[in-house]
Amino acid sequence: MSDHIYKKIEIVGSSPKGIEDAVNNAISRAGKTIRNMNWFEVIEVRGHLENNKVGHWQVTVKVGFTLDNGQD
Amino acid sequence: MSDHIYKKIEIVGSSPKGIEDAVNNAISRAGKTIRNMNWFEVIEVRGHLENNKVGHWQVTVKVGFTLDNGQD
Amino acid sequence: MSDHIYKKIEIVGSSPKGIEDAVNNAISRAGKTIRNMNWFEVIEVRGHLENNKVGHWQVTVKVGFTLDNGQD
Amino acid sequence: MSDHIYKKIEIVGSSPKGIEDAVNNAISRAGKTIRNMNWFEVIEVRGHLENNKVGHWQVTVKVGFTLDNGQD
Amino acid sequence: MSDHIYKKIEIVGSSPKGIEDAVNNAISRAGKTIRNMNWFEVIEVRGHLENNKVGHWQVTVKVGFTLDNGQD
Amino acid sequence: MSDHIYKKIEIVGSSPKGIEDAVNNAISRAGKTIRNMNWFEVIEVRGHLENNKVGHWQVTVKVGFTLDNGQD
Amino acid sequence: MSDHIYKKIEIVGSSPKGIEDAVNNAISRAGKTIRNMNWFEVIEVRGHLENNKVGHWQVTVKVGFTLDNGQD
Amino acid sequence: MSDHIYKKIEIVGSSPKGIEDAVNNAISRAGKTIRNMNWFEVIEVRGHLENNKVGHWQVTVKVGFTLDNGQD
Amino acid sequence: MSDHIYKKIEIVGSSPKGIEDAVNNAISRAGKTIRNMNWFEVIEVRGHLENNKVGHWQVTVKVGFTLDNGQD
Amino acid sequence: MSDHIYKKIEIVGSSPKGIEDAVNNAISRAGKTIRNMNWFEVIEVRGHLENNKVGHWQVTVKVGFTLDNGQD
Amino acid sequence: MSDHIYKKIEIVGSSPKGIEDAVNNAISRAGKTIRNMNWFEVIEVRGHLENNKVGHWQVTVKVGFTLDNGQD
Amino acid sequence: MSDHIYKKIEIVGSSPKGIEDAVNNAISRAGKTIRNMNWFEVIEVRGHLENNKVGHWQVTVKVGFTLDNGQD
Repeated sequence: MSDHIYKKIEIVGSSPKGIEDAVNNAISRAGKTIRNMNWFEVIEVRGHLENNKVGHWQVTVKVGFTLDNGQD
Repeated sequence: MSDHIYKKIEIVGSSPKGIEDAVNNAISRAGKTIRNMNWFEVIEVRGHLENNKVGHWQVTVKVGFTLDNGQD
Repeated sequence: MSDHIYKKIEIVGSSPKGIEDAVNNAISRAGKTIRNMNWFEVIEVRGHLENNKVGHWQVTVKVGFTLDNGQD
Repeated sequence: MSDHIYKKIEIVGSSPKGIEDAVNNAISRAGKTIRNMNWFEVIEVRGHLENNKVGHWQVTVKVGFTLDNGQD
Repeated sequence: MSDHIYKKIEIVGSSPKGIEDAVNNAISRAGKTIRNMNWFEVIEVRGHLENNKVGHWQVTVKVGFTLDNGQD
Repeated sequence: MSDHIYKKIEIVGSSPKGIEDAVNNAISRAGKTIRNMNWFEVIEVRGHLENNKVGHWQVTVKVGFTLDNGQD
Repeated sequence: MSDHIYKKIEIVGSSPKGIEDAVNNAISRAGKTIRNMNWFEVIEVRGHLENNKVGHWQVTVKVGFTLDNGQD
Repeated sequence: MSDHIYKKIEIVGSSPKGIEDAVNNAISRAGKTIRNMNWFEVIEVRGHLENNKVGHWQVTVKVGFTLDNGQD
Repeated sequence: MSDHIYKKIEIVGSSPKGIEDAVNNAISRAGKTIRNMNWFEVIEVRGHLENNKVGHWQVTVKVGFTLDNGQD
Repeated sequence: MSDHIYKKIEIVGSSPKGIEDAVNNAISRAGKTIRNMNWFEVIEVRGHLENNKVGHWQVTVKVGFTLDNGQD
Repeated sequence: MSDHIYKKIEIVGSSPKGIEDAVNNAISRAGKTIRNMNWFEVIEVRGHLENNKVGHWQVTVKVGFTLDNGQD
Repeated sequence: MSDHIYKKIEIVGSSPKGIEDAVNNAISRAGKTIRNMNWFEVIEVRGHLENNKVGHWQVTVKVGFTLDNGQD
C-alpha cells in the first residue's frame, strides 16, 4: 500500500541448546524495545567450546522492523 | 562409473518449527516431481517475525539431482 | 498460515532504456508460464556498449514463486 | 581537518517507481532523526511482484553520518 | 536488436579427463532438451578422489539460453 | 572467429540524476580515449548525501574493450 | 593476559538428526586428539538425500584451539 | 553462564597516523555512549589521498556490546 | 551408514603443464601421508610468469579425508 | 631486496581449445607492451556456446608486473 | 559541483616495516605519473616470510583518481 | 625448477600492540614446528575491547610452507 521504510539492526543471540533457541533469545530481547519487527536473516553461526562440547551457540541475525512514527 | 550429469535447482522451504523441518518440507515437495535427488546445500536462512517471535523459518536450499533419460 | 514452498529461477532481462525496464521485461516474460510469482532479487547488472553508449542493459534477477499443485 | 568518526546504519526503502525513488524514500525518512548524513551505499535490490509486475522496489542502503556531539 | 530474455540453469558435469571435458559433458546433456544455448559460467570445480588420484572432475556451470516462444 | 583479447578497466561515473546517467557519463568519458568498448559490469552503487537528499549517484563500472593493434 | 596463539582446522561432521548433532559429532571427534579447543565457526551446511528425505546432514566447521607447548 | 545477547553497530574511525589509531578513535568515540563493549571486527580499510600521500586512514569496524538492562 | 567425520586441509600444487596436472601433483603428495582421501575443491588458480609465458600453474585445493582411528 | 611496487591489470583471453590456452593468449598479448610480468590470478572462467558445444573459452586474469622506471 | 569521472587502478606496494608503509610506497610510486589521486581502498594484505619472520608486507590497494583532460 | 607442493594452515595471532605484531607472534609460534614457511595471507582482523580500548588485536593468517620430505 504505502511505501514502507525499514531499518535493520544486527544482534547476536546465544543459547546452550541450539541455533533456533539462540535466534529466539535474540528476537525476544530485541522485542523489549523495538516495535513492528518483520523479519530476520541469519548472518553467522558460531559458538564457544567447553570440555570438548558446544557450550554456547552464538547466532548473528539481522532484524528488520518498520520505521513508524516515533521509532528510529 | 559413468559420467553423471546433475542439475541444481533452488527451493525455499518454510516451517514454524525450525531449520531442519523447513529443509525437509522443501525436499519433500521437490520429490513429488523430481527423481533421483542426491544432495542439498543450504544457501540462506531467514524468517518472518510475528508478535516478537519467529513465525516461520525460511530456508533456501539448492537441490542436486541426476539428469537421467526423460528428466530435465 | 500453511508452510509454503517456493522455487527460485534465474532470468536475464534486457532493455535499451534502463535497469527497471530490463527487470520488468524479465518478469513479464516469466509470467507467461509461471503462476504466483512473489518476489525478485537483482543479482547482476551489466550491458552491451555500442558506439560509446549503453546499447542494452542486462539485469539478472532471481524470481521466487509458490510451488502450488501442478506447477514445478 | 579533525579526525571524524562516522556511524553506518542499514535502511530499506521501498517504492513502486524504481530504485532511485526507493533510495530517496529511505534517505528522506532517515533524515527526520539523523543529522549530518554524508553518504550511502546500495547493499541489495529486490522487490515484490504483484500480477506479474513489480509492485514495490525494495532497496537496502547503508547510510553514513557524522557522530557529532549529542548524536549517537 | 530486440530485447532478449534469457534463463540461466545450473548443471554439474563430470569427467575423469579434466575440467574442459566435464564442462562439455554438461553442455552436451543440456543441449538434448534446451534450444538456443548462448553462454556458460564456471561456478565451482571439485571432484572425487580414488586411490590417491582424481577419479572424476565435477564442474558446476550456469548455462544461459534464450527464452523464445514455446521454451521455458 | 579469431581469438579476441579484451582488457577491463574500472571507472566511476557520477550524476545527480540516477544510476543509468552515472553509467552513461562514465562510458562517455572512457570513449574519448578507448576504442572498441564492448561491455560493462556494474560493480558498486553509492553516492553523496546533501541536505538529506542524494546529491550525486556514484557508480563503479568495469568496462571491457578489445585489445587491437596499437591500443593497450 | 599473555598473547595467545590459536590454530584453526576445518572439520566436517555428519548426522542423520540435524545440524547441531553434526557439529557435536565433529567436535567430539576432534577432541580425541586436540587439547584446549575454544570456539567453532559454521562454514557450510549441506547433506545427502535418500528416498526424498535428508539422509545425513553434513556441516563444515572451523575449530579454534590454543597452541600451547607440545601441540601443533 | 547466562545467555548473553549482543548488538553490533558499524562505525568508521579516521586518523592521519594509521589503521590502529583509526580503530582506537572509533572505539573511543563509541564508548562515550555505549557500555560493555566486548569486541570489534575490521570490515574495510580505505582512506583519502592528499598531495600524493595518505591524508586520512578510514577504517570501518563492527563493535559488539552486551545488551544489558536499560541499553539498546 | 555410520556418521563419518572428515577433515579438510589446504594444499597448493604446481605444474608447468596446466591446472589438472597441478591438482594431481598436490593430491599425489598429500597421499603419501594421508589415508582415505575422498574429495577435493579447487579454491584458487594462479601462477608465475616467465618470459611472457606461464612458467608454473599454482592451484590451491582443499582435500577432504575420513578421520578414522589413528589419523588426525 | 628493494621495496618493489607492482601493478595489476585485468585481461580476458579467449580460445576454442581450453582454459590454459585462453590464459596463454591473454598473457602473450599483454607481453607485447608490458615488461616484467610476474604472476597472474584467474578471476573468472566462462565462454560462448555454439551448436551445443563450447565455441570459445573466455578466461579473465589479473596480471601483475613490476613498475620499473619508465613503465606505468 | 560538476559530474566527476574517476578511474581506479590496482597497485601492490611492499615494505619490510608494515602495512601503512607498504601502502605509502604504492601511493608514492603511483603519484609519479598520475595526477589528482583522491582515495584508496585496501584489497589484500599478504607477505613473504624469511627465516620465520615477515620479510616484506605486500598490500594491494585500489587507487582512485580524477579523469581530467589529458589523463587516462 | 621442480614442481613444489605447499600446504596452508590457518593461525590466529594476538597482540596488545597492533596488527603487525599480532602477525609476527603467529608466525614466530608457527616457526617452532614448521620448516620452510614461504608466505602468509591476512584473512581477518578483529580484537577484544577492555575499558573502551583495544585490549588485544587478533589477526587470522594463512601460512604457506613447502611440503618437503618428512614434513606434513
